[in-house]
Formats: sequence, C-alpha cells, structure tokens
Amino acid sequence: MREVYIIGIGITTFTRLEYPLSEIAAYASMGALKDAGLTDVDYLVVANMGSARINSQSALASAVADTLSLTPAGAVRVENGPASGASAIKEGFMAVASGMHDTVLVAGAERMREVNSLEATDFVATLTHPMAEYIYGVTLPGHAAMFTRLYMEKYGVTERHLAMVGVKNQNNAMLNKDAHLHQPISLEGILDSPEAMTNNPWVAEPIRFFDCCPVSDGGAALILASKEVAEASGRPMIRISGIGQATDTLAVHEREEPTDLMAVRRAAEQAYAMAGIKPKDIDVAELHDAFTILEIVESEEVGFFEKGKGHIALEKGETEIGGKMPINPSGGLKGKGHPVGATGVAQVHEIVMQLRGDAGERQVKGAKNGLACNFGGFGNNVIVSTYTREG
Amino acid sequence: MREVYIIGIGITTFTRLEYPLSEIAAYASMGALKDAGLTDVDYLVVANMGSARINSQSALASAVADTLSLTPAGAVRVENGPASGASAIKEGFMAVASGMHDTVLVAGAERMREVNSLEATDFVATLTHPMAEYIYGVTLPGHAAMFTRLYMEKYGVTERHLAMVGVKNQNNAMLNKDAHLHQPISLEGILDSPEAMTNNPWVAEPIRFFDCCPVSDGGAALILASKEVAEASGRPMIRISGIGQATDTLAVHEREEPTDLMAVRRAAEQAYAMAGIKPKDIDVAELHDAFTILEIVESEEVGFFEKGKGHIALEKGETEIGGKMPINPSGGLKGKGHPVGATGVAQVHEIVMQLRGDAGERQVKGAKNGLACNFGGFGNNVIVSTYTREG
Repeated sequence: MREVYIIGIGITTFTRLEYPLSEIAAYASMGALKDAGLTDVDYLVVANMGSARINSQSALASAVADTLSLTPAGAVRVENGPASGASAIKEGFMAVASGMHDTVLVAGAERMREVNSLEATDFVATLTHPMAEYIYGVTLPGHAAMFTRLYMEKYGVTERHLAMVGVKNQNNAMLNKDAHLHQPISLEGILDSPEAMTNNPWVAEPIRFFDCCPVSDGGAALILASKEVAEASGRPMIRISGIGQATDTLAVHEREEPTDLMAVRRAAEQAYAMAGIKPKDIDVAELHDAFTILEIVESEEVGFFEKGKGHIALEKGETEIGGKMPINPSGGLKGKGHPVGATGVAQVHEIVMQLRGDAGERQVKGAKNGLACNFGGFGNNVIVSTYTREG
Repeated sequence: MREVYIIGIGITTFTRLEYPLSEIAAYASMGALKDAGLTDVDYLVVANMGSARINSQSALASAVADTLSLTPAGAVRVENGPASGASAIKEGFMAVASGMHDTVLVAGAERMREVNSLEATDFVATLTHPMAEYIYGVTLPGHAAMFTRLYMEKYGVTERHLAMVGVKNQNNAMLNKDAHLHQPISLEGILDSPEAMTNNPWVAEPIRFFDCCPVSDGGAALILASKEVAEASGRPMIRISGIGQATDTLAVHEREEPTDLMAVRRAAEQAYAMAGIKPKDIDVAELHDAFTILEIVESEEVGFFEKGKGHIALEKGETEIGGKMPINPSGGLKGKGHPVGATGVAQVHEIVMQLRGDAGERQVKGAKNGLACNFGGFGNNVIVSTYTREG
C-alpha cells in the first residue's frame, strides 16, 4: 500500500453562504489547490449529504469538476450521512494508496440554510432508521437527548459538564476566523445567571440550545498525494497514518448497551493499529461534537480517557488548548459550525494546520500526531483517522 | 496494485418493487454473498442516486450494512448520477487493489416508482446544470432529443435505426427473467403499421416512447475480492482488467462538438490501456442505452465501430447476440430496465454471467473479455470498465 500525504488545504467561512453549492465546494478547493501548488488533479471525491433533497442537485461531483475546470478528471460524490467527509477522505486515500491516482482533491460542502430549520431538521433525520425511528418523528436532537439522559444517570455527567464543552468550543471558535459562531459565552451566561435559562432554553431536555451545533453552510478541501508528488511539492509532509471505520446497528435501541459507542471504539482501534501508535501519542484531536455529550463520550471511546471519566478530564481543563489532550481547538462542530458534508474534511483541515504549526492563537504547541473522529448517523457509521507530521 | 476479482453476483427482478430501498439492496446482496460462498465482507459500497430525495432516506449504506447484519464492517454510499453503479465498482476496486480490504460488497439499488413519473423525471433532471439547464426545465428526454436530432443530421441516422436498437434490446430482454419489460416488439408494431404511431408516440421529437428506457425499481450486487480470496472461493476467476473514467462539461451546449461524447472515448481509452487490450478483443458489451441513440453513439466512442458508422453495423445485425459485436444481450437499460443506482452494477452482473458462460439462451459463445459503459449526466461523467475471464 502506497503512503498518502496531504499537501494542500482550503476552507470557506462556515456561515450562511449565498452562492451555489458547487461553488462552495469549488471555493474551498481553489484554496487547497493553491496551497498545494497544483492546477490539476487526477481524481475528485466530493462529500455532501443533502444536495438532491435540499438543493435540487444530483451528481454534484460532476458539477464541481466542471466548475473548477478539472475535466476530464474522474469525479465521484460520497454520501455517508454526517460521516460523508471522512468517507471521502478514505476513498481518496485508497485511490492514491492503490496506485490508481497520484493526486486526489477531496472536497466537502453543504448548503443547508437554503431551507428553513424545520426542513433542515427533517432532512438530517432521514439518516435514522426509516421504519423504526424516522416514521415516528425522532430527530437527531431527540436521539441526543435520550442518549445524554442515559449517560448522566450512568456516569454522573451533569448539565454543567455539557455546558463546559460548549463554552470551551465556542470560545475556541473565537480564535478561528472561519468559524460560524463568533460570540463568546460563559457558564455564567448560559447556566448560572438569572437570564441563563432564557438565553439557553431546552431543545430536547436535558439538551439546551448551547448544547447543539449551529446549522451552517460551508466547504472544506484537501489535496491528497503520493509520496513522490508530496516530496516534489515542497509542502510539509503530513501523512495519513491510520484510517479505521466501523458500523453499528442503524437503530439505537437495538444496541446491547446504548451508552457504548462501539463504532467509535472499533474505528479508533483500527486507526491506531494501522498507524502503529497509541492514544497517548495523539497531541491534538477534532471530535464530532454535534451535541456536547458526544465530545465527552468520543474522548473516552477513542481511548483518551477511561470510559465514564471524560467529564472529569474536561472539568480539570485537560481538553483545553493548553491542556494535556486538546480537543476541538478549531471550535468543533459546536463553534466552527456543521455544514454536514464539509465537517469531516474540515476536521482534517484543522489537524493539518495544527501539525504544520500554522494554527496561530489556537496552536497546540509541537503537535506531531493528530486524530479526527467523524460520527455518522447516531453512531452507526464512524470513521477515525490519524495524521502524522514527518520530518 | 493488487489484482481484483468478482466472485459473486446477485440481482433482483427489475420492476415495481413494494419493499423498502435498503431491502432491495439487501436482497441482491444476499444473492451475491451466497454465490461467492461468503457470509461476511470487509467493506460495503452502495450505489444509489435518489434515496434522500425520493425515498426520504440518507446514509443508505449504513442501513444496508445493518439489514444484512454485516456490521461492524465499514460502509459508504456513492452517488454519481446514472454512473453511480460503476463508480461504486471503481471505489470497491480501489479498496481491494490498495490492500485496505480483501472483500468488498458492491450493491446498487434504486426505488423510483415510489414517486409518480413527473416527479421521477424531475428528480433525474437534477443531474443537469443547475443554472444553465435545470432551471429552464430541460429534462433528460429533452437533452436526448436534441442530441438525437444533431446525430441524425450529421451522420444519417434515422428513426428506423433508433427503433432497431429498441427492438433488439427489448427482444433480448425476453431471454432475461430479471428484465423489466417482457413484451416482444417489432419494427412493424412500433414504426411501420397504421397503429404504430399510437403505440409509439413522441416523447420529445424525434424520440418516441420505445426509444426510452422504463422507470424501474431494482437492485444488483457484486462481491469483489483479492486474488487470494478469489482462488480460495473456487468460483470462476473473472478479473476487473480495466477501469477508465472521464468527465466533460456539465452543460451540453458548452462542448466544442456536441455529437462527440468525449468522456466515453477517454474513459474507454483508459480502460483498454489499463487492461492491455483493444476494442477488437471485446466479445460482449453492455452499453448505457437510456435512450436508443446512446447505444449507437457509445458503440462508436468505445471503439467498436468508426465514428458515425454505428448505425450501419446495427443494420447489418452485428450488435445482435449472434453478431460480430453483441451489445446489451441482457436487454440493456431499454429492456432490462434502469433503476438508476443499480444500473452500472447490473451491467457488470450481465458481463460476469456471460464470461462465466451462465447466460443461457442469451449466451455469447466463448466470451472471454467483456466491457461495460455506464454513462453519467448527459455524458459528463462516464466510466468504462473491462472484465477478463482467466483460466
């Protein structure tokens, strides 16, 4: 298997964007091409979840290839729910690793604010079990609320812990010019003050407004390349060192222990084994905090902390940028935003910035190994990947 | 690059199916697993175009993995318009070729008849250029009609040639129990008799009813495997010998010569180069005849006949099952049906049957090399692949 490197990264601001979906993908891609010093690639993999349903556009990859004048290069769209981005990276990785292609553009994009928030919520809910969940009206916030309640009862997580994740990530986002939310928040303002409950109402009890990521438009892109192309580019050598992926039962209620996210655990184990590293070797991580509880649980399942102890590490400040195991320095989905198809690509955009030492005020000093966890469905299709700076 | 073999195939009847989309994919997959003698795979690639828009289901691959109890294997959905099926095969190929996975289930499925034909036509039209074509109301039959008119004027193709493709393929479908249309037709009945114009009205002049494929539900599946697994399986050794892919301008009117399908030509050239074979080495082909004109043009662009001469070869009977270059023995999209995401996979299902010598009444004698052309958009994303029987 050939080694695969990331030699270019690009991103749009995550916000409400008033230009077409294919141009969101193209804008991020132009940044990545420029960063890599390339004007052409052999193959495109485009990650997106909702184009046909919410933007009336199918075969998005063909449109992106055309918009960027990258024809006649082959192009494919990958849709894997919220894990679409990391899935696209995996497909791009295999394209280079196999020797089929030497350079691959991986672009993720979503334009969700074209529809109203009810339609966006319904659209995201289409990833649930069609006969056991969706038809009964369950939404992702509803799933997350039930999951959060179980976790609180089993492991002693409190509303305060959830709020601490939100405060940390939304304040990290203040250091990221491309983040969606640029509004500093505090425990005082969203939990402890008389106005807090007005500022931060229930969405689905025990989940409050500030426990949920925003609905964002945005795009992110990476250039993957063979070792030969990477060396010739002169860009920092950031290698995709491990990729793991696992599925779980589609319906959450069918799991033996619903508070175990087995797909996260298995995907992480595979990624570490492939990379030949251990959780303690990871210097910086981007975890999929679509809801605040998920950062806590994923930080346990990927092996950073013992099961049920993630909220303790959080309390101690270990997951802050200056802490022992910095998580979501970019702001995460909570602060940076969650344009679904772009998210998994944007996580790796941040890891590459960190490993290059280019993350400015939010830099994790001396980061050499990074990890990203892109969480699909409600934990039914998860990809964990690791990245290693060489030289 | 590791060699990749197809050791299992499965298919549903193409028709109107009253069971859920994920079960359509699963039904075909169970056939493929059984054929391969496997109960498990390392990875799933699911091809589908319209699940989110017409079936309110996203992240279909996760549902298929769950339905088949193949968890925790990783799974991904590929959407590339009508070329989704071949794209999934390409992704599965690279997964095995890279060494990332040893066995991959490639399943394609579509459930289009859940919506009415106007909605189905609009859904398919979402693959056109969003700003230059879709918003002006162009449909795929509209595109095909304009293209057909140009081809008639430039190369002397007549309505009779178009009808000959339809008659050949729909009658081939009579020999295929899984085909959608089991209604024999003749030139007399659809073109030459007094009732013909009633039986066969214009859809978009010069295209008539019998020039268009039906709207079908259906699924098809393949098991891809490494050489070691293939040899151990004891199944016939059918190797994926070549894969080529090319894009073209999204909007048809931007092409220098609109009657040239450059993406087909380029994809075919790449596939032949990779396989180390030439058009004359191909014994049987499945071409993407969503409209009758496309079989004629593709038969030229993949190099079977000179440009502008495909209709002459057709007249001579060369593309019949007993002819020099049999095309669409399965019935093609025209006769077998066109459940979009399944189509590219079903084409290869037929090629494998032919190369195994298992095609019964429609067998092309002694077939050793086969070719499939899966045509995305209106020729803006095309995959041509070749298959070779070993031993």
